[in-house]
Amino acid sequence: MATVDAILADQYPAKSHARRVAALLQAHHGDSAPGVIYLEAQKTRLIEDNDEAMPFRQRRFFYYLSGCSLPDSSLIYDINADKLTLFIPPTDPEDVIWSGLPLSADEALKLYDVDSVLATTEVNATLQSIGSRYGGSAVAFMIAGQVSIETKFQGFMDTNLSALKGVIEKTRVVKDAYEIALLKTANDISAKAHIAAIKASKTATNEREIEGAFIATCIAYGAREQSYHPIVACGANGATLHYGKNNSDLIDPVTKERKTNVLIDAGAEYRAYCSDITRVFPLGGKFTTETRQIYEIVLQMQMECITMLKGGIQWENVHAHAHRVAIKGLLALGILLGSENELFEKRISVAFFPHGLGHYLGMDTHDTGGDPNYGDKDSMFKYLRVRGRLPAGSVVTVEPGIYFCRFIIDPYTQSPDLGKHIDTNVLERYWSVGGVRIEDNIHITRDGYENLTTAPKTIEEVESLAL
Amino acid sequence: MATVDAILADQYPAKSHARRVAALLQAHHGDSAPGVIYLEAQKTRLIEDNDEAMPFRQRRFFYYLSGCSLPDSSLIYDINADKLTLFIPPTDPEDVIWSGLPLSADEALKLYDVDSVLATTEVNATLQSIGSRYGGSAVAFMIAGQVSIETKFQGFMDTNLSALKGVIEKTRVVKDAYEIALLKTANDISAKAHIAAIKASKTATNEREIEGAFIATCIAYGAREQSYHPIVACGANGATLHYGKNNSDLIDPVTKERKTNVLIDAGAEYRAYCSDITRVFPLGGKFTTETRQIYEIVLQMQMECITMLKGGIQWENVHAHAHRVAIKGLLALGILLGSENELFEKRISVAFFPHGLGHYLGMDTHDTGGDPNYGDKDSMFKYLRVRGRLPAGSVVTVEPGIYFCRFIIDPYTQSPDLGKHIDTNVLERYWSVGGVRIEDNIHITRDGYENLTTAPKTIEEVESLAL
Repeated sequence: MATVDAILADQYPAKSHARRVAALLQAHHGDSAPGVIYLEAQKTRLIEDNDEAMPFRQRRFFYYLSGCSLPDSSLIYDINADKLTLFIPPTDPEDVIWSGLPLSADEALKLYDVDSVLATTEVNATLQSIGSRYGGSAVAFMIAGQVSIETKFQGFMDTNLSALKGVIEKTRVVKDAYEIALLKTANDISAKAHIAAIKASKTATNEREIEGAFIATCIAYGAREQSYHPIVACGANGATLHYGKNNSDLIDPVTKERKTNVLIDAGAEYRAYCSDITRVFPLGGKFTTETRQIYEIVLQMQMECITMLKGGIQWENVHAHAHRVAIKGLLALGILLGSENELFEKRISVAFFPHGLGHYLGMDTHDTGGDPNYGDKDSMFKYLRVRGRLPAGSVVTVEPGIYFCRFIIDPYTQSPDLGKHIDTNVLERYWSVGGVRIEDNIHITRDGYENLTTAPKTIEEVESLAL
Repeated sequence: MATVDAILADQYPAKSHARRVAALLQAHHGDSAPGVIYLEAQKTRLIEDNDEAMPFRQRRFFYYLSGCSLPDSSLIYDINADKLTLFIPPTDPEDVIWSGLPLSADEALKLYDVDSVLATTEVNATLQSIGSRYGGSAVAFMIAGQVSIETKFQGFMDTNLSALKGVIEKTRVVKDAYEIALLKTANDISAKAHIAAIKASKTATNEREIEGAFIATCIAYGAREQSYHPIVACGANGATLHYGKNNSDLIDPVTKERKTNVLIDAGAEYRAYCSDITRVFPLGGKFTTETRQIYEIVLQMQMECITMLKGGIQWENVHAHAHRVAIKGLLALGILLGSENELFEKRISVAFFPHGLGHYLGMDTHDTGGDPNYGDKDSMFKYLRVRGRLPAGSVVTVEPGIYFCRFIIDPYTQSPDLGKHIDTNVLERYWSVGGVRIEDNIHITRDGYENLTTAPKTIEEVESLAL
């Protein structure tokens, strides 16, 4: 098998993506009219009331068919001719003085897996030429709201604004070797950053110092962007699932004692591909008894679920299995009371594990194609971001968690029917745990899986790093 | 004088800002109709095709009259009643489960310098009540494009969308003690980050490691946002004024030698207030002869210009003085040939110092009220971002530079008239310097100035840190 470096030394497989999208598009569209895919990059946009550009994030649909991170570009894929043309902004002499020479068309042709590179000033003439070549019978596929008003589809029979987006979303689910190599790189950088974060905790006094160490490491290794806003949550902050303030002192202001553990959910983005990794580590090198107990349950949930994975697996079953492991663990600790089956049927474990087991991962952290059903009346599956079977080639996060969050648990303990299944005396000892979540990124293969995440995870590893 | 900490322990002076804005508004508007100022915060916006929020940056006009960093809020200042009301988003029970409790109205009233805090659901009722109190004679001042369509100005005589923005922009030029304290804090954090960046250069192999150290330090000290995209430019990259790739190796790929110096232009943002600081330091602890010579000239330019500053100073004169110092210095090195006056009249120094001496600084890096004239036919003043006299209380960057950029210098050396004033043989030795810019943030006072920037600047300081 080729190494990651060898794979990434080649071009991003834009042409292959264009062909896969076109095949699915024509299958959906069901006719044989000549078709053209037209996509635009994200535009350079200024910060409101300001002369500086907004942070740039390339439009994923465009990147998928080009591998090009330049703003203000566009592309045409002529399906019948199998010809992919990239259009890049023309050189602005004034801008060269301040910013240096931009990428030339010749350089772009070497860099990207496209057949031709022209200036964006050539888009309309190219479209017109293609339109007339097909004698007015061609259809132009594009994405509603992502086409400039200057772009004209002269000589086309039809423009279709509805089909393309869904087709690319679906195509993106199955990753090729190049995409897996990018995801591995994002994961490897994040692993270094997670280690740096744990090490930084030894001298840190506030969550933000840990966050700073994480981000600095990502930037140093070439990942300037984060996949998402990092969560660095010490102590009970870990119970807030969307915590993102990252500004709490590691010393409890009341007890003056150092908090016991930190949850960090953070991942580097590498060349538009995301990693998404959660780890929990002790402050001071040793988990408390309670945190260790919860950590062991969550790790068990995760490892058993990962072992179930292979192409075609029904994701709901994996998610349900995580709940069964959680129930057994919480029963053994005495937090839950009753039989495993009754607790499962009554969805009691949702009080401690309220979110889904994971989501697709790719150019978006919550990647396309998951087909969730947020209207599901079943509390166990309502927030599951992927429904149905996972195809080989998909990449999914496996991120079970157990949280001690009063806003979520209180309605259960206060319910006459459900409250009798939770021993609040035992529970009392666990509020200080906050939350434990362990999250890896898993590549689904035909016969099994490949874990892309290399960040340390066993209790021994994280304790020794934090010591 | 109160310390920075003592000043910042108090509330941000929103009410005083509202009064100053109202006074200028009524002076401009020239009538005595009762007036109301209505401003909205920036909205929560999702990343395109994604379920995560875009990085949030509070709208500066709203912040100036509230000190509030919450998205989706708004404010009303009833000018005649001198009553400032802040509206914050109502609590969403679903969101509490995931994100915890938001700021309550009572907490907001303690935190912000406002007279009343209500939920945003009360905006229209409040406006209607104010409108009817003034019997339909009141005018509502707001900013075009920054008012939600849901907001209704029932019972108002008139709405004015044109006056408010310019008035706030003008009011923002003169800073109060609280704003100066915020700018000092941003500067102090940046100073730590600049020191960390210089120290990181000792073991770094690529510009991005230096950038990472800078950003981590800012985050660790509570400044999560950068005022602008940092520039970390080694060797000749320093000649590209808008360099921002920050991904070059510090070892020259051809000569295999370590590059000689690094230009870093980076500043932390603290509670919506910006710092903007540029430093140049040697890789390895000793400037080369050429870089040191250029550094000495630029430092001389900067120090002489700073000494000229006080309330009422004509900024063009300070900028012109920087050019005269540059000309003298480049004459002494033999790069320029001719008399100082002839070189000045022919604008030759613009080839080496093409940008303006500085800009206003505040909640924006290029702060409001500078009144530039980019259409100026005089190349020396065309890019000057502040024109006219600097009032006491304004804060301005002083950032002279000398650059060796072929795109800028070549047209001069190739001109028959101008080329004879540049000795290209001498110039040859200086291309490797790249560029030197030294930038501090200066608070203009009635009788002089206060330098807010504490980052190390003398040759001895930066050499010893880099050693």
